[in-house]
Amino acid sequence: MTSTPWVVATEPTLLDRAIFNDQGLIPAIAQDSSSRAVLMMAWMNREALEATLREGRVTYFSRSRQELWRKGDTSGHTQHATRIRLDCDGDVLLLDVVQEGPACHTGATSCFDSETSHD
Amino acid sequence: MTSTPWVVATEPTLLDRAIFNDQGLIPAIAQDSSSRAVLMMAWMNREALEATLREGRVTYFSRSRQELWRKGDTSGHTQHATRIRLDCDGDVLLLDVVQEGPACHTGATSCFDSETSHD
Repeated sequence: MTSTPWVVATEPTLLDRAIFNDQGLIPAIAQDSSSRAVLMMAWMNREALEATLREGRVTYFSRSRQELWRKGDTSGHTQHATRIRLDCDGDVLLLDVVQEGPACHTGATSCFDSETSHD
Repeated sequence: MTSTPWVVATEPTLLDRAIFNDQGLIPAIAQDSSSRAVLMMAWMNREALEATLREGRVTYFSRSRQELWRKGDTSGHTQHATRIRLDCDGDVLLLDVVQEGPACHTGATSCFDSETSHD
């Protein structure tokens, strides 16, 4: 399947400014661009960030599997990034995303919506 | 100064469920409870999380200074937590906060609002 063109709004120096930790990873927070809910936080290495910028489809790095993890490839619950920002220190990413289906593997909309934390 | 009573909505098992990394830390995302903007991400150790739950005032752990950092003690730009949730894996915290003044040390509302990433 070829990727459809997708514009990710970001600063041109993002890849240069991004600071990866001693494991080569940076935290990435995904926020639903319409509901503004924080959906999840996962990690990216440089390759995952480059893929995300290139394809629009959000790719993380799975620390448990030690491999790239293009969200939705298995579940169908893809994320497309519409904007990616670094924080003031350059060591955290915030992604505005369009989420297809639930973001969480539990089937919840957000990974922060467990049954014990509902209002 | 004594703390005023402040109710932090959370699950009763939060402290038991929270998973701290090998440095004893867990990422904590602060989201403005009214604007829904993601303001910052910092780290907490168990003591910081306990203090936050106890006081309502958000306390992080400064990795650079290796000490507790009660946000706003120096700047006056305090954060009060209204709700704290763990994600599905128990290794990320999401805080709904009431932010006094700018959240970022740069004076920006959010640490993700640098001049290079404005719309």
